Amino acid sequence: MIPVAILGPTGYTGLELLEWLVRHPSLHVAYLATAREKQPRIDEEFPRLAGRLRSAHGPIDPRCRPIDAAAIQAAGVKLAFLCLPHEAAMHHAPTLLASGIKVVDLSAAYRIKDRAIYERAYGHPHTDAENLAHAEYGLPEWNRDAIRSARLVANPGCYPTAAAIAILPMLKAGLIDPASIIVNAASGASGAGREAKPHLTLVESGDNFSAYGIGVHRHQPEIQQTLDRYGEPRPANAEGVLFVPHLLPVERGILETIYATTNGPALRTADLLLELKNAYDGEPFVTVREGEATPTLRDVQHTNQVHVAVRSFGERVVLIAALDNLVKGASGQAIQNANLMLGFEETAGLA
Amino acid sequence: MIPVAILGPTGYTGLELLEWLVRHPSLHVAYLATAREKQPRIDEEFPRLAGRLRSAHGPIDPRCRPIDAAAIQAAGVKLAFLCLPHEAAMHHAPTLLASGIKVVDLSAAYRIKDRAIYERAYGHPHTDAENLAHAEYGLPEWNRDAIRSARLVANPGCYPTAAAIAILPMLKAGLIDPASIIVNAASGASGAGREAKPHLTLVESGDNFSAYGIGVHRHQPEIQQTLDRYGEPRPANAEGVLFVPHLLPVERGILETIYATTNGPALRTADLLLELKNAYDGEPFVTVREGEATPTLRDVQHTNQVHVAVRSFGERVVLIAALDNLVKGASGQAIQNANLMLGFEETAGLA
Amino acid sequence: MIPVAILGPTGYTGLELLEWLVRHPSLHVAYLATAREKQPRIDEEFPRLAGRLRSAHGPIDPRCRPIDAAAIQAAGVKLAFLCLPHEAAMHHAPTLLASGIKVVDLSAAYRIKDRAIYERAYGHPHTDAENLAHAEYGLPEWNRDAIRSARLVANPGCYPTAAAIAILPMLKAGLIDPASIIVNAASGASGAGREAKPHLTLVESGDNFSAYGIGVHRHQPEIQQTLDRYGEPRPANAEGVLFVPHLLPVERGILETIYATTNGPALRTADLLLELKNAYDGEPFVTVREGEATPTLRDVQHTNQVHVAVRSFGERVVLIAALDNLVKGASGQAIQNANLMLGFEETAGLA
Amino acid sequence: MIPVAILGPTGYTGLELLEWLVRHPSLHVAYLATAREKQPRIDEEFPRLAGRLRSAHGPIDPRCRPIDAAAIQAAGVKLAFLCLPHEAAMHHAPTLLASGIKVVDLSAAYRIKDRAIYERAYGHPHTDAENLAHAEYGLPEWNRDAIRSARLVANPGCYPTAAAIAILPMLKAGLIDPASIIVNAASGASGAGREAKPHLTLVESGDNFSAYGIGVHRHQPEIQQTLDRYGEPRPANAEGVLFVPHLLPVERGILETIYATTNGPALRTADLLLELKNAYDGEPFVTVREGEATPTLRDVQHTNQVHVAVRSFGERVVLIAALDNLVKGASGQAIQNANLMLGFEETAGLA
Repeated sequence: MIPVAILGPTGYTGLELLEWLVRHPSLHVAYLATAREKQPRIDEEFPRLAGRLRSAHGPIDPRCRPIDAAAIQAAGVKLAFLCLPHEAAMHHAPTLLASGIKVVDLSAAYRIKDRAIYERAYGHPHTDAENLAHAEYGLPEWNRDAIRSARLVANPGCYPTAAAIAILPMLKAGLIDPASIIVNAASGASGAGREAKPHLTLVESGDNFSAYGIGVHRHQPEIQQTLDRYGEPRPANAEGVLFVPHLLPVERGILETIYATTNGPALRTADLLLELKNAYDGEPFVTVREGEATPTLRDVQHTNQVHVAVRSFGERVVLIAALDNLVKGASGQAIQNANLMLGFEETAGLA
Repeated sequence: MIPVAILGPTGYTGLELLEWLVRHPSLHVAYLATAREKQPRIDEEFPRLAGRLRSAHGPIDPRCRPIDAAAIQAAGVKLAFLCLPHEAAMHHAPTLLASGIKVVDLSAAYRIKDRAIYERAYGHPHTDAENLAHAEYGLPEWNRDAIRSARLVANPGCYPTAAAIAILPMLKAGLIDPASIIVNAASGASGAGREAKPHLTLVESGDNFSAYGIGVHRHQPEIQQTLDRYGEPRPANAEGVLFVPHLLPVERGILETIYATTNGPALRTADLLLELKNAYDGEPFVTVREGEATPTLRDVQHTNQVHVAVRSFGERVVLIAALDNLVKGASGQAIQNANLMLGFEETAGLA
Repeated sequence: MIPVAILGPTGYTGLELLEWLVRHPSLHVAYLATAREKQPRIDEEFPRLAGRLRSAHGPIDPRCRPIDAAAIQAAGVKLAFLCLPHEAAMHHAPTLLASGIKVVDLSAAYRIKDRAIYERAYGHPHTDAENLAHAEYGLPEWNRDAIRSARLVANPGCYPTAAAIAILPMLKAGLIDPASIIVNAASGASGAGREAKPHLTLVESGDNFSAYGIGVHRHQPEIQQTLDRYGEPRPANAEGVLFVPHLLPVERGILETIYATTNGPALRTADLLLELKNAYDGEPFVTVREGEATPTLRDVQHTNQVHVAVRSFGERVVLIAALDNLVKGASGQAIQNANLMLGFEETAGLA
Repeated sequence: MIPVAILGPTGYTGLELLEWLVRHPSLHVAYLATAREKQPRIDEEFPRLAGRLRSAHGPIDPRCRPIDAAAIQAAGVKLAFLCLPHEAAMHHAPTLLASGIKVVDLSAAYRIKDRAIYERAYGHPHTDAENLAHAEYGLPEWNRDAIRSARLVANPGCYPTAAAIAILPMLKAGLIDPASIIVNAASGASGAGREAKPHLTLVESGDNFSAYGIGVHRHQPEIQQTLDRYGEPRPANAEGVLFVPHLLPVERGILETIYATTNGPALRTADLLLELKNAYDGEPFVTVREGEATPTLRDVQHTNQVHVAVRSFGERVVLIAALDNLVKGASGQAIQNANLMLGFEETAGLA
């Protein structure tokens, strides 16, 4: 049994981590750390946790405590999940790492390797260049070996995970033009976090649908970095991916409909499908969808799966990817990364 | 053509008034008044009004202006709809009335005749006893004549309107025991107003359902007053109505399932139904539902109708009432009242 | 007052027509015609119509009657709205037209000029070539004059209306490459009609989102025809539009996010916006959205408006269009067409 | 490891069983049995199961096979979950039991002890009196010991489970009048099953809310039997419970708001609460809610918990109970029962 901590458990990714970790055979939540002055009981913050905070290794203490690396270390914690704001993550990760505690960071703090790009996208300085340098991008399907030996893993964004899983096999095989990619995405409202904002009330966002952050969303540079890094290198001045997210009137789930043109000749759906199947053969959390029905949110909600499908129309390619933004897009993938970092079965606790 | 004003058009009842008034054959919105320091254009506040602000009598000026009785009077306004907080309504109504402007108040300020009860329910002092004394309760089906000659009408609450329409015929006919009434109600989230509150986000209130304010909701004394006043007088120390509202994951609509026991013998559904039909014969906005299907929200959304049905089980009576909380439960009924106060067809603009 | 008929009032477009027509100052529904053997009362079929079937010209008879051109003519009907299946529309339109009754057909029967394309898309023979030849496409913003004098108007599809309004000004001005257009669309479930199908239940389609008919939807040829006809002629063997619809978990509303590349140089958002504004200056039902917020479903639901916005990113153009599929995408536009055909104000009854 | 079978896995309770059983430490689904002529792969029937059909004991065969007791026995199955229609359950249970296979029946076939009452409620004859006689009612909190040694367990209905958990402690303590009970309930649409029915489409049931089966729902006699059997015996001719269910526009979750009058004196909320807490002290799946917030659907969705709260108002008592109709109201409780019948920890696989 490995004790773990959650820093920032009062947001939706923190709640989702707890929901999954109570079922994990080997991890036990030993410390809940909050920056709030009045530290809540997590089962009062989220009544749905009442009576359920018990892992295979005994009861989980529902009381949140201060963010205190020494106390976290004293609790025997070997790995910490950071569900903090970006700046707080950069602030606390160094101390935890210095205390010998591995870190899976669910914020964006360590995702973008180029600090200038990060700072432009997120609007604040990056204050931890040292750890940024060795942080590993936590996309196991494309970076598994590095994750295994990493001490700090930057858990990917929800949109970038779906985009990467769908697009990378096409890029890697040189089938599509990297300058032609459009990621049209739609996400449930939990992706916007737990804070009450005027456009996120039921009246405003229920029964509604709209685009936002067209071409300027923070996940666009992350998607670009992932495509450039794990796919085919892009010609120097080729145009980048165009990312257009939309807000869906649902709690959870992301569907991306991705458009690209081939690198020349028309391609057959069957050939593209084969590429996907080869890329993800044996992957436990990627389901390549053959047949007529394409992925839906319902196919992936409350699971750690990504479903992908592909269609070709002459020189045009359409990829569809679906995942649960709180699971494979956040907390599930975080556990997948933790499993790798701690030497457990990658699928442990993720059934 | 009669010029009217809306005070507080930036909330949901203000928006709903505008949606209906653009279709009214005789009323024209001549003044939009807001307490906000930075006065918005109403078609920027609500983009769905863009290009639609035109009545039969010409374009409606989308600019909000200060709440200024003199300016409102100067604009020729004959009647003002108050969509303000309760205390602001009490503050502004006297000046408007003194300027010869009739008032339909959509807040609760003038609904409860007994100031002590009002102050206990709403938690602030009542500051306009004078106008409270002559304010008429704007439930046309039970107070039509008084409304016609009123200068100040207190537009009823959404829940109380549904309860009154369903229960009063039974009380009036002496069929049910007034001490036995339970009003189990469910409302869409627009009833909670436009302010973003943590429990009203899509994530928290979508896919959800819960009771709130059990037995202590502010509409309970209003329901009680209405039943006592227009129904059968209740024995001195008889228990009052028990009101239990719930929050539905929809934008709009109220459904009330009302329980009571008969005043003695078992009753037949057919007899109760006949009582309802007699009570509302010729009423343009009450539909008594016979047949098997009972009222649903979908039957009344975006209409000024109340649908009512009844079932008996021995000595037990179940009444069902449905209405749209923003229409018959607020802005539609306000226009219905304005029509009466100004001598128009009661149904004008409410098709 | 002009008597009109609705053929097929028991579907969602029929219901929507009735909801609007009760408010129309000059049209009166004089005949409801159904192919059902057991003809229902329309206010029992749709209880929300109960007590509301009255126009400015008197009560509307709620009883459905057989589809019988002679009886319809005898009722004085001058124009018929056809809300029938495509094949039934082709069957009944000729008789109505021969009886001197104008027709607005809400099916697809007369939309596609090329019979071969129609038959491939819809899977049945076209049986009325004669009327197809003179049918006018009912998109007033681009075909107003022809509609005014038409006896048969093919009311456009919901998706094609949104696509046309957004794309045509760009094509007309030669700003975008017609071979580059991708229409990524999302629609509420009412677009799929009233029949209960397994994938349309609340459990399956609520909280869900998915693509369907990728690249093979019946509206793709209609969009293509409209772009070719009212926009810039496409080079002979240029690739056509790629249309990818999605199913939203809402009742009504369409949002289209449209991608294209410029015809050469990078363009500025401001220039594209100006083009839109010029194209729709004075149009009562098109709102060009400036400013940061892009169109949402909530902006257009229950209105006859289309909202459009545009963004440019170098050589890429993103257009957003929103409308209510049952109003501007069907019944509202049908009334707009009827107004033109009968010489009324184009906006009559559509406030 | 104990092999189990699911008969009828293509409905929502079958799917939910599979979702939970893949996480069970000791049970392994060894046989999926369907009555369909064309037997599907369950991961094609429900794409969300793709790639996830693996328990701690190895892969689960996704192929459905015929309902054949001999084959089921040959697969080593020790317990079968029946997710079949009521009549099919009565048909197959005897053979399975005769083959030595224990049965948890999720239909209503063995819930009502009095055949006449069953036949009146369900409209078909009861064909297995023999097994009905010894079937145990699977409500562990009130019948745990009998379940442990049962060979056939009738898994309770969803509504009756919530009602029983909330009401029984009050009845048992003699605090409320059994003749005064009203169960006002609301359920998500999954409770109506997977078949597409006109009133269950997204358009009809989304954004909607309505009562149905008022006073005549099949669960009313089941609730009555449970209250009579595990609570206080009701006076011979006392009126029974009145049950009024409503359909919520959500996938899953039941909330019951239950009304009763005390057996005489006014009671304090604190005393009633204490009674609930005593009744469920140590129960793993019942959470008694103290504090101001009452149970919501969101508190219990996707968990096997029932949340209960109580309020008193003089001689009136209001109880609130929430559960997930597919988990504690069906498949979760079925696993809880199976755990008891097979000697496992009652909570196994239900975290």
